[in-house]
Amino acid sequence: MKVRIDIMLKNGVLDPQGKAISHALSTLGFAGVEDVRVGKSIIVTTSEPDAAKATEAAKAMAEKILANLVIEDFKITVL
Amino acid sequence: MKVRIDIMLKNGVLDPQGKAISHALSTLGFAGVEDVRVGKSIIVTTSEPDAAKATEAAKAMAEKILANLVIEDFKITVL
Repeated sequence: MKVRIDIMLKNGVLDPQGKAISHALSTLGFAGVEDVRVGKSIIVTTSEPDAAKATEAAKAMAEKILANLVIEDFKITVL
Repeated sequence: MKVRIDIMLKNGVLDPQGKAISHALSTLGFAGVEDVRVGKSIIVTTSEPDAAKATEAAKAMAEKILANLVIEDFKITVL
């Protein structure tokens, strides 16, 4: 089973990487860019055949290691 | 219009960050992890109200600046 964990900074948390990209895009002539946020997506392939159990495991991985819950939110999608 | 650009390393390109996460997960007791791939997701908010034009612009952004097409693939989703 393949599961995707999307990790994004929470709203309100400053995203310097996003700001840098936004600035670069404007400088390079892309008009109308209002905001850019950057996140990670982690695709985990497990031997677990059950989608619900794989989601559960991915949630535990995100909470325990992959995401910093103080400043980040995560979302899990079964692929 | 909000557009998400997902950038992942192409299949076959070594992903050391993914390997490190995979190893960390196994060490920390998550059984059955077969493979981990890590990518970036970039959410761009533009003033463009038309979805097709926003997608077009996002494609240009990805091709010109955000993705390294030699080793990375990208996918665009309108949010």
